[in-house]
This record gives sequence, C-alpha cells and structure tokens, in this order.
Amino acid sequence: MNKTILTGIKPTGQIHLGNYIGAIKPALELAKIPEYQAAYFVADYHGLTKIHNAKEFKELSYGIAATWLALGLDPEKVIFYKQSDVPEIFELNWILACFTPKGLMNRAHAYKGMVESNKQMDKDLDYGVNMGIYTYPILMAADILMFKTNVVPVGKDQIQHVEIARDIAETFNHNYGDTFVLPSYQVQEETELLPGLDGRKMSKSYNNTIPLFEEPKKLQKLINKIKTDSLPPEAPKDPNTSIVFTLYKEFAEASEIEKMREQYVNGISWGEAKEELYNVMNKFLEEPREKYKMLMENPKVIDDILLSGAERARAVSKPFLKEVKGKIGFN
Amino acid sequence: MNKTILTGIKPTGQIHLGNYIGAIKPALELAKIPEYQAAYFVADYHGLTKIHNAKEFKELSYGIAATWLALGLDPEKVIFYKQSDVPEIFELNWILACFTPKGLMNRAHAYKGMVESNKQMDKDLDYGVNMGIYTYPILMAADILMFKTNVVPVGKDQIQHVEIARDIAETFNHNYGDTFVLPSYQVQEETELLPGLDGRKMSKSYNNTIPLFEEPKKLQKLINKIKTDSLPPEAPKDPNTSIVFTLYKEFAEASEIEKMREQYVNGISWGEAKEELYNVMNKFLEEPREKYKMLMENPKVIDDILLSGAERARAVSKPFLKEVKGKIGFN
Repeated sequence: MNKTILTGIKPTGQIHLGNYIGAIKPALELAKIPEYQAAYFVADYHGLTKIHNAKEFKELSYGIAATWLALGLDPEKVIFYKQSDVPEIFELNWILACFTPKGLMNRAHAYKGMVESNKQMDKDLDYGVNMGIYTYPILMAADILMFKTNVVPVGKDQIQHVEIARDIAETFNHNYGDTFVLPSYQVQEETELLPGLDGRKMSKSYNNTIPLFEEPKKLQKLINKIKTDSLPPEAPKDPNTSIVFTLYKEFAEASEIEKMREQYVNGISWGEAKEELYNVMNKFLEEPREKYKMLMENPKVIDDILLSGAERARAVSKPFLKEVKGKIGFN
Repeated sequence: MNKTILTGIKPTGQIHLGNYIGAIKPALELAKIPEYQAAYFVADYHGLTKIHNAKEFKELSYGIAATWLALGLDPEKVIFYKQSDVPEIFELNWILACFTPKGLMNRAHAYKGMVESNKQMDKDLDYGVNMGIYTYPILMAADILMFKTNVVPVGKDQIQHVEIARDIAETFNHNYGDTFVLPSYQVQEETELLPGLDGRKMSKSYNNTIPLFEEPKKLQKLINKIKTDSLPPEAPKDPNTSIVFTLYKEFAEASEIEKMREQYVNGISWGEAKEELYNVMNKFLEEPREKYKMLMENPKVIDDILLSGAERARAVSKPFLKEVKGKIGFN
C-alpha cells in the first residue's frame, strides 16, 4: 500500500533560497518516490495566526501556490490543495482539542519561546499571544491525521508538531479503538545548513535572504553582497568555508562543482566566483521565475489546480470525518 | 427587522426541573415573542469536552433534543438544529481564535475555577483541563456570531460568554470593518432560584435534583424527600420559606397558588402539601413525558426535525462564512 507523505506551507512571507533548499526541494524529491502518495497543501489558515491584512493574505497565499507549481510540483501526482478548501479539517480540529491536555500546548516550543521573550521584556507572559498561535499544533494534528499521514518531512524544530499529533491520536485511539494512523517524521538534515548573505542560516529574521524569484539584476546585486574573506584574487581559497561555494554546490552540476573546487584551490577572485554562482543560480531559476510570473498573472489557473486538488483531498476527508464522528457517537 | 435570539444546550446530563424552570421555560417563552427569530441548538460538540463515551454521548444528544420538543418547542417557528450539523461553525471557530488574545481565555470563569481547585489540591494548575474545556468560549462565540445573534438569554454565570463573544467580534470588526453583529445578553433572573430537594439551588453537583421525565411513582418518592420543617400539621406555615411551596408556584395556576397560600397560613400538613405539589407537577409533566418517550423511541423523527433545522441554519451560515472569508482575503 502507498504511504502518505504530507507537508503544509504557511503563507507568511516571501519565499527565499533557504526555503527552497531546506524544504521545497527535498519535498519535491520525496514526491517522486513511487511508494509515496504526497499531499502538499497551502496552510493558509495557519497564516491567519499572523497575517491580518486581506491584501497581503491573498497575495501570500497565491504566492505560495505559484512557487510550488513553478518549481515543478506535479498536481497530477501530488494532491495539492488549500487547507481552507477542506472544511472537515476544522471540525476535526475541535474534536482533537477535546483530547488534548492543555499541558501539551503549554510545552509547545513556539509558545514557550514567546513566553520566554515576554518574561525577558518584563511583560505579561501571554502578551501578543493569540489563541491561533497557542493552539496551532492542534490544527496541525488535524492536518496530519485527517489524511492518514504516514510520514511528515520536517525540520528539526518541527519534530514536536508530529509528536503532538501522535500523542493526540494515541489518546483518541485508546478511548475509541484504532481510528487514526500514527504519523512518523523524517528529518530534513540540510534544513539548517544553507547560509545567508552573512553566513548565518538564511532566514527572514536575520534579513540575510535571497528571494527565490528576484529579478536577474537584483539577484546579481544580492550575490555581490555575500560575505567573503579579503584574500587577494590569486590566493588559494578554502571552498569548504566559503558561503559562495556552499551556495554554488546547490545549483551546479557535479562536474561543474569539481571544476570550481579546483579553481578555489588554485586561486579564483571572489568577483569571478560570484559571477559563476550567479550564472548557475540564474540558469536554474530562469524558468521557474517565468512560470511563477505567468501563474501570478493568471490566478484562475492556480484556483483551478487547487480546487481539483481539494476535490481529491475531500474524497478522503469527508468519509473519514464521518467515520471519526461515528466512533464518538454522532448519528 | 426581526432580532435573533440564540441559545444552546449542552448534552452532559439528565435534564432536571431546575434546567426547565431556569432555562428551557423562559427560552420557550422568548421564542413566542413575535419580533424574535429564535435559533436554539443542541450543543453536542460542547458536550465532547466531557463525554468521551459513544453510547452516552448519543443518548444525551437525543435526550436534549427530545426534551425541548416534548416541552413545546415549535420547530416550524424556532430554527432548531444540532451544532454538529453546521460545519461552518468550526471554520469560524478557528478564524475567531486568531483574533482572541490568550489572556481572555485565562480569565474565563470555568477555567479559572478548575485552576483554583487544582491549586487547592496541590496539583498541576492545568490538571484535568483539556483544550476543549479551555477554548470552548471561542466555540461559543462562533455559535453566537455565526447567526448574527442579537440577544442571548443567559444565567448570571454565563454573562462572560457573551462578553467574550463581543470582545472577539469587536477585534475582528475593528480590523476588517463591520462584519459581526455585537450580541447582547438578557439575564434570566430566576435561574438561581429554583431550590432542590435540600433547599440549595437545584443542581446536578448537589445531587438534589428532580429529573424532568421521571416516572410518576419515582417523582412522588422524590417529592416526599423534599426538606421541610417539623411543624405539626395544624400549625400555620410560612409559604415564602417553604421549598414545597416554591416549587408549587412554578406549576400551579394563579388561583391554585392563592388557595394554597391560604392553606399554608391556616395550617396544612406537609404530607398534604407534597401531595398537592405532586398533583400539579405530574399534571403538567404527563403530556411532555409521553411525548419525550415517543420521541426517544423514534429517533428518526428527531433526526428529521434537526436536519431540516440544520438546513435553515446553513442557509445563514454558508453565505455568512463566505462573506467573513472574503474580508480576510480568501478568494
């Protein structure tokens, strides 16, 4: 039997190279494995915990969908849908809440982080925490459990989400008999590794990102800002400590990488190395960038794809919710 | 324009006279007022915060519906539905959560009560609290706001629920423009007053209740247990301090009440007073009791009534949820 692999992408900001390398690329590769049925979704309702501006919310939601499609997600193979098109998830969300000890939420990393920072700033511990932020791990559990997910690809900081989903599922199963599939996680080891312009992990919060669909000129400008040492052009350079080389490796062919490694050892100017990085990066991004633009100009195309994905998703969620409700005692 | 008046009844236990006098009777009277459109619902999903046994859950849900119908709720006039038949409520529940400061939930009476009792018993403050119990005021807000409720009839201890719904609605309206109707509450003054067998407020937690549809013999036995003083039969008695008289007043005609008051002052034995109470109570309850029995033996009749109520409810909830989502930025 096929295994279901599921991941959701929250529309809360511009997608950058770190997102691509750390999450999108490995997910697209996993989706190609024959024994997996991938279910990937735009987690728009998770975005609502933070985005309270209608225009921004809409643009980010379309942007996320267009990004995945532009990067090669095949909606014929992957069940690709918007969370908000599957209302059964929200009914399940309430059901699961009734089997979630509050202590489990108190221990959720994101919430604990906010409490900690409020403490340091001498504010009320729950300052700035809305109930969407506090309870979103339950909604995630509903996302995961609704589709009988076997595997969730995660970054290390998301392992807890899958553990929470398992905990809740086990509590329910223990009470009503086997109902939910217990999900496992698969850690994407590389997630933490892609460096940003300054060498730290590429992250919106460090303001060191390279947006994925930046125009060529701007892309080149950003690449020129990447931190290097001040060795002269002819000096041998260590590729293993170079941000430029680390990025290069992600976009170049194996043979190009070998050649470049030699050039580093033999001496290459940073300007030249950055030029080469721009070339491979731009070559890779050119086509997705065009496709992304085309999709964003034709939202109807995105709508149609997502709606047909939602139909496939609801072919699972509708009968399964009915089954779950039957166990609870609904007629 | 008609005003919407809404109330929900949680299926968590056997209905007793206190529930009838304090909540059901006044609600049925309000439903008769011409300028009100009443929407009354079986709050089955609220029951799930506590009832985790399928058989019990089902029986209690049917029992609540049958009770209201047996006591005279007119499903042609009142929109009478089961919460679980209106999935839009659960999507709205999530939306509202994203506009609910966590502090608001920390201050909810029911939750604070549990924390207080955990504190006294030296337990973890959140011991025994599931996330359904903690977040149910948001689901209540969704219940209320979904149907553009103008008035919620409440007991004093439920005023806060309506205030919370208002708070959340105001936050949303402030951000996206006028969307939700701000609900008001109307306090049922008598709620606290109906005494139980021992003279304290009739309440399941005091184990002093008279179940509404008890068989005549058992009803009589319970009435005989009502606490009285030990005055001899011929001694004058104060009707105003008598539990028996207080209950009598709720079921007798005005002329009967006057007559009984005189008998108290002139001297009546407690046995006789209780016999009279039984007579008026049983006379009133006879017909509803039969109707209740008939309905419970024909759940299909209940199902049909509730489903047609759900259709009327969804004629409101579906387009309104769409409107709300439009404001947020969903396409």
